[in-house]
Amino acid sequence: MESQDQGLTRSRIDRLRFCFSELHADALLVSHPANIRYLCSFSGSAGLLLVEPAKATLFTDSRYTFQAREEVKGAQVQIVKKGMVKAIGDALRGKRGQPLVGYSAGHLTVAQKEALQAAAGGAIRWVKDANVVERMRAVKDREELTLMREAAELISEVFRRVLPEVKAGASELEVAGKIEYTMKQLGASGPSFETIVASGARSAWAHAQPTTKILKKSELVVLDHGAILRGYCSDLTRTIFLGRTPAKVRKLYDAVLEAQAAAKNAIRPGVTAGEVDAAARGTLRRYGLAKYFTHSTGHGLGLEIHEMPRLGKGEKFVLQEGMVVTVEPGVYVEGLGGIRIEDDVVVSAQGAVELTNAPRELIEN
Amino acid sequence: MESQDQGLTRSRIDRLRFCFSELHADALLVSHPANIRYLCSFSGSAGLLLVEPAKATLFTDSRYTFQAREEVKGAQVQIVKKGMVKAIGDALRGKRGQPLVGYSAGHLTVAQKEALQAAAGGAIRWVKDANVVERMRAVKDREELTLMREAAELISEVFRRVLPEVKAGASELEVAGKIEYTMKQLGASGPSFETIVASGARSAWAHAQPTTKILKKSELVVLDHGAILRGYCSDLTRTIFLGRTPAKVRKLYDAVLEAQAAAKNAIRPGVTAGEVDAAARGTLRRYGLAKYFTHSTGHGLGLEIHEMPRLGKGEKFVLQEGMVVTVEPGVYVEGLGGIRIEDDVVVSAQGAVELTNAPRELIEN
Repeated sequence: MESQDQGLTRSRIDRLRFCFSELHADALLVSHPANIRYLCSFSGSAGLLLVEPAKATLFTDSRYTFQAREEVKGAQVQIVKKGMVKAIGDALRGKRGQPLVGYSAGHLTVAQKEALQAAAGGAIRWVKDANVVERMRAVKDREELTLMREAAELISEVFRRVLPEVKAGASELEVAGKIEYTMKQLGASGPSFETIVASGARSAWAHAQPTTKILKKSELVVLDHGAILRGYCSDLTRTIFLGRTPAKVRKLYDAVLEAQAAAKNAIRPGVTAGEVDAAARGTLRRYGLAKYFTHSTGHGLGLEIHEMPRLGKGEKFVLQEGMVVTVEPGVYVEGLGGIRIEDDVVVSAQGAVELTNAPRELIEN
Repeated sequence: MESQDQGLTRSRIDRLRFCFSELHADALLVSHPANIRYLCSFSGSAGLLLVEPAKATLFTDSRYTFQAREEVKGAQVQIVKKGMVKAIGDALRGKRGQPLVGYSAGHLTVAQKEALQAAAGGAIRWVKDANVVERMRAVKDREELTLMREAAELISEVFRRVLPEVKAGASELEVAGKIEYTMKQLGASGPSFETIVASGARSAWAHAQPTTKILKKSELVVLDHGAILRGYCSDLTRTIFLGRTPAKVRKLYDAVLEAQAAAKNAIRPGVTAGEVDAAARGTLRRYGLAKYFTHSTGHGLGLEIHEMPRLGKGEKFVLQEGMVVTVEPGVYVEGLGGIRIEDDVVVSAQGAVELTNAPRELIEN
């Protein structure tokens, strides 16, 4: 297991090095924690990874000495005493020939970039990394897909276990607490985002946080929950009706379910993210519901809860085999409430393969 | 309640306007979610707040339409259809006389800043905001202190309730799950950071995530947990020994406790953050333990789990009445384990006043 891990990690850093010429870079400074974890397995939140042609070095601070020693594969570890930026500056300052160092414009703040520039002095020319690690991460390898399937099955099981408790009389926070407790019982390290339990009128808030509000009869309840298992995220949404569903609500539900199926059917290697979004949106438009669908159809999923690609309107990003995305159309009608149905799927040559496996029909509790 | 809230929020935005001249700014673009929440009560994660001399506008997207309508005080709401950056660009583009707009170099990425610059065109000159909102937030007002005391008492109660379950045979993840479940039962919206339960050799990892590892007799267990209550964070660490404590461990514990007391005693308006750190570090040095104290003594606490000021070596930041900080010295000895003791205190004219109230003596379970 250990040696396999090492092989895997080495190959990721090596694959990254193949991209240096595309970027016209001589080295790459990796600052985003998820990218660092992907490349060298370090899961701490404070670190910088400098990838050079012949070596890779993880800079971190003394809080992470033991953790780095145990986790890091394929890179040397340097424990920094007097500030990370200074250490990177020192490492770069000595280089000859003004090397080009790639950095992530999307993950360094203006202040961090300025501090790095000052620390490295004129020895370095900086070049944007064009999200090269994020693009690598978008396509999952076999090991990653195994972990992601486990994370998706785990959250599906959490849903099944907590479902009997989603009923009138419980508070949103109680339900959210049970969801997060159950995922930990099943081995997850925690939620991949703040669990959403939104009931009644609040279910029309697409990103509602749970409150002490009590669930009541004849309300819609949106549960949006995900778990992190060995670093990888899952993301699952189901909508429940408390009591007997009025015809109007059932119509909305069926339209969202049909939109989700249409988006899944559109998924295959070679289509754009925008085409998948258009499939869901087109279905809802036919039912006159497009105006209630106020977000994009889905997003990539992996070490982070939101990754490439975004399945949004007009997105040109082309899907490839091995990408993992959520498919989650929804409608939000003020006063009435919201309905969202979300699954995680992997793009295969045969189309979308579902990773989550919770029941998808409308549940009346 | 409503009108009081409005008055409070208006006054925060107004107080911010008083700082415009110090910054030489004509307006301020607030991009950091915690700063936005502080100024106008919006708790969504996607928004930009533009504060001008005579008005303030929150830009957000259609996912937050209902939420913004319900939450936002003291600012107009503009729902953006085609990208936040473009909307801000449009709002700024029409201004005359090349106004100076403040922005946060610590919270805008290089990519976001460039997109804003491109969208606003040459109409705007940009100036750094010198962390003006963060500096305002460092001093809590009376309403905030009430909320923070409640959040601190809540996490103390969580500790007392979960303590009986911290014993040999339970897994780190089970204990972490119970902690987070209990905080939700008590009304918290969730943990303020990923709960740490680290046992045995792993307790020497200052930032360990809980695993499936089972707690065993004769191990140290570090519990570091915090809760968010109505937006405000608490942060509490206790260290437990499973069984009868060897004299060597008790000596370490007593030294850390003494270091914590020394830091608390050093706290009062007018001292620097570095002086508080030096008090804790000096105590541990007298016991020959300074080299095992691998992080800073504490940090500010509020809407975020890490805020100004950092109680670190040599920090010149001067403490003021109303600031809330953690005091959390620790020692980490490889092989033996780690010990950390942390409380939240508010700086008062009379010195440090404790907000957390869990038992602090060494607990043997």
